[in-house]
Amino acid sequence: MKEALRQARKAGEEGEIPVGAVVVSNGRIISKAYNQCERLNDPTAHAEIQAITSACYELQSKFLEDCDLYVTLEPCPMCAGALYWARIRTLYYGSDDTQRGYSLHNKSLLHPKTKIFKGLFREESEALLKDFFNNLRTN
Amino acid sequence: MKEALRQARKAGEEGEIPVGAVVVSNGRIISKAYNQCERLNDPTAHAEIQAITSACYELQSKFLEDCDLYVTLEPCPMCAGALYWARIRTLYYGSDDTQRGYSLHNKSLLHPKTKIFKGLFREESEALLKDFFNNLRTN
Repeated sequence: MKEALRQARKAGEEGEIPVGAVVVSNGRIISKAYNQCERLNDPTAHAEIQAITSACYELQSKFLEDCDLYVTLEPCPMCAGALYWARIRTLYYGSDDTQRGYSLHNKSLLHPKTKIFKGLFREESEALLKDFFNNLRTN
Repeated sequence: MKEALRQARKAGEEGEIPVGAVVVSNGRIISKAYNQCERLNDPTAHAEIQAITSACYELQSKFLEDCDLYVTLEPCPMCAGALYWARIRTLYYGSDDTQRGYSLHNKSLLHPKTKIFKGLFREESEALLKDFFNNLRTN
């Protein structure tokens, strides 16, 4: 999760909403990514989507059944849907997303076998987002 | 929608589940794509995601508020979530997806401003999928 936070900070430094994600397989980080929607002009370029795509490329598999995803913010429905298709083993996330989090919808957006742990480094994850939006408002 | 069907046929010819999508802006097709999950080993490589990413690149905008998406199969939650972020103006789709369609979930997976028209070339869209899965079973 510390690497996910580092990725989120990178996003913030580039003017992106600070969200970072990593995929871990057998205790090793196999992909890391941060939100790049602005730079790429791509609404699908969330940290999770990029981390999933990279991890699948690394493993040459479209399933991540033995992998865990760490992300600083609760995934949106799009990303939860991607995690469903990837059959991710465990989802760890930091901050809740009370506006666009997948958990506001039907919980079955995730795969039934996926385990979920929330609140990991919640304060650090939230602080990054709060600082980012505070800066936006004052600048 | 005819071009989306052509894209879907391409997918089927390559051993992919036959789904195709196009994005139209000002009466012009600005992107077309077909499902490539197998070839790319990427569970996010649905026709819609690729069509959205290409259309955004073409327009250099992360919003597709003046664009319409035509897709042969009802989008899944991941793709509906992507269409939400892209703020697509109109979604036209062919076949219903009674197993993984977004409409099995909360309708608000799509953007509230998105208009929805379903059943366009439904028979042709369904036939492609049925033939594909029949062939899988007999081979």
